Amino acid sequence: MIAAASSGTTGPTRLTRTMRPDAVPFLEAAAGRPAPHTPVWFMRQAGRSLPEYRAMRGEGSILDAIKRPDIAAEITLQPVRRYGVDAAVLFSDIVVPAHAVGFGIDIAPGTGPVCAEPLRTVADLDRLPELDAAGHTPYVLETVALLARELPVTVPLLAFAGAPFTVGSYLIEGRPSRTYEHTKQMMHRQPELWDSVMRRLGQHAVESISGQLDHGAKAFQLFDSWAGALSRADYDRFVLPYSTAVFEGVAARHPHAPGIHFGIGCDHLLESMVAAGPSVLGLDWRTPIAAARHRMGSDLIVQGNLDPALVLAGTEVASAGTRAVLADNGAHPGHIFNLGHGVQPNTDPDVLAAIVDLVHTMTASTP
Amino acid sequence: MIAAASSGTTGPTRLTRTMRPDAVPFLEAAAGRPAPHTPVWFMRQAGRSLPEYRAMRGEGSILDAIKRPDIAAEITLQPVRRYGVDAAVLFSDIVVPAHAVGFGIDIAPGTGPVCAEPLRTVADLDRLPELDAAGHTPYVLETVALLARELPVTVPLLAFAGAPFTVGSYLIEGRPSRTYEHTKQMMHRQPELWDSVMRRLGQHAVESISGQLDHGAKAFQLFDSWAGALSRADYDRFVLPYSTAVFEGVAARHPHAPGIHFGIGCDHLLESMVAAGPSVLGLDWRTPIAAARHRMGSDLIVQGNLDPALVLAGTEVASAGTRAVLADNGAHPGHIFNLGHGVQPNTDPDVLAAIVDLVHTMTASTP
Repeated sequence: MIAAASSGTTGPTRLTRTMRPDAVPFLEAAAGRPAPHTPVWFMRQAGRSLPEYRAMRGEGSILDAIKRPDIAAEITLQPVRRYGVDAAVLFSDIVVPAHAVGFGIDIAPGTGPVCAEPLRTVADLDRLPELDAAGHTPYVLETVALLARELPVTVPLLAFAGAPFTVGSYLIEGRPSRTYEHTKQMMHRQPELWDSVMRRLGQHAVESISGQLDHGAKAFQLFDSWAGALSRADYDRFVLPYSTAVFEGVAARHPHAPGIHFGIGCDHLLESMVAAGPSVLGLDWRTPIAAARHRMGSDLIVQGNLDPALVLAGTEVASAGTRAVLADNGAHPGHIFNLGHGVQPNTDPDVLAAIVDLVHTMTASTP
Repeated sequence: MIAAASSGTTGPTRLTRTMRPDAVPFLEAAAGRPAPHTPVWFMRQAGRSLPEYRAMRGEGSILDAIKRPDIAAEITLQPVRRYGVDAAVLFSDIVVPAHAVGFGIDIAPGTGPVCAEPLRTVADLDRLPELDAAGHTPYVLETVALLARELPVTVPLLAFAGAPFTVGSYLIEGRPSRTYEHTKQMMHRQPELWDSVMRRLGQHAVESISGQLDHGAKAFQLFDSWAGALSRADYDRFVLPYSTAVFEGVAARHPHAPGIHFGIGCDHLLESMVAAGPSVLGLDWRTPIAAARHRMGSDLIVQGNLDPALVLAGTEVASAGTRAVLADNGAHPGHIFNLGHGVQPNTDPDVLAAIVDLVHTMTASTP
């Protein structure tokens, strides 16, 4: 359910009156409660856009870095130190669970996830066993535990996983796709196999997220990055049940951890994505915040949604865009500021720093 | 203005009563009038998916084939003969005008449009003079004239052009892009240069389409394929005025030629795309036809919108999808059947043939 704790609490005076003294901005906003300021984090805030990351990492696969808890924790902390963001997000990748159970998927530099043998038949499911987070991905849990000790209490760690559709599209296509032709073929021609793949990947997501929450993460995001390639009818039939199962499965083990549901170009699917059961709806720049609340309720808690291309255009353009996002939100307490997509590798970190400062300054509540 | 000639004319009996004896299905549907059957054509129906095309063409640039009227006309006719579609669409490309005026853009096989020197400064505009259709693209006009003589009267030829934004994005990025970062930077940092580029490309579109209509084309489509990358606010400010000018410019010279406005992933922009002034709104599979009419008026005339990935899944899946599109349209006279995107190169032509037959059979009005 996405709803502010109470409606009508949008004026700054009222915000101040109801704020907890020990408020963690991210967690307050994710619950629709007034916060000391609007929290900010950036999808892909860690990694390639940071010089300190490039200085540290060699040419190896990103999966190698993810498997080294000391390195993965340090990479996760870099943007927290540099920007003063209000959340850390685990340095990892949505294909880690499938890779860890031995499916045979790698991340090719400059291309993305690739499988030598894509998932096309029932027999291929044998290569995709259930995930045991402690057994298959001990390094992830160790990284999370390290971060839970290192991070200030005001900066929660976010767990994440790929949603069954988006992870499945990589396994089935075997590489990034624009058409999703094999994925859509499986939906329509082998619906029983599709169902099995989605259930298995749903188990991966629940187990992966729950493992991270067990070890100190405080909230999570489910990335269904490419769901926007589907019609609403196909989404509702072939994706929604399995993403709903992920939110339900996590809630059964961690009823108080807020979950964010996010995809790119999903404006036509948002009502269904809310129906899957997140606490917070992630928006890209195609959906104005006010329009989302007009459609789905004035108490909708949202994350987003500055166009990352505006960040590439420099501080002046990015700041104007940031002000427009804040104005679009209209001082609603249920807003987590973010970009509408991941940070581009060629982003200037100084522009992101300016955005964080601007959001914090413009939304700071006066005591 | 997009509106059926009269409302309430959706029952088959009434359709028959009001139909003209010499009705051209495409033109009747484009005007919102009852037609002998729902017309069908496919974006990219000519070209790579057809064995007769592959047999004819060598390894040369597609631009070489476009410059040979005998070859371009033959390629345009191939799908008309094979499928019995209700419209022919000129075998050409949206970058032809920019190429023809000497900008320096080519089509790289497997990549798409590429420019060695992208458009980034005012000085680059010198390489993009106004288009004179007869002077710069005599081969296009000759191909059109050939086709106007060859085609049966019931199969109109469609002219087309790229919209200023989409053509501009190729010139500015220099290659296909997923982020449109240079394009969006120019919008926000060099709005005067952006304005000049859009006006120039709008002149190209008007001149190109009008030239084709002068020589025998009967209708046209403006492709703004990638406009969906923009927010509605950016679309309205940086794109809509220039696309509106294209529809107005063509209408001034050809007031009776219906125009179709189409883009991919533009569900969040459709009201603005209608405001630009087309006769017909092209939909991709993300927007149900009934939803579009609910939003924009029950008399909206639409084109679309079968997911081309379903065509790749074989005749059974494609036929089920076709029936769903027809049911979604609800026997409204203002419907031109198409895919929601271009035909994929690996499409089986037999599946497209089955779709044409199915649409014709299911929508045939009884005399």
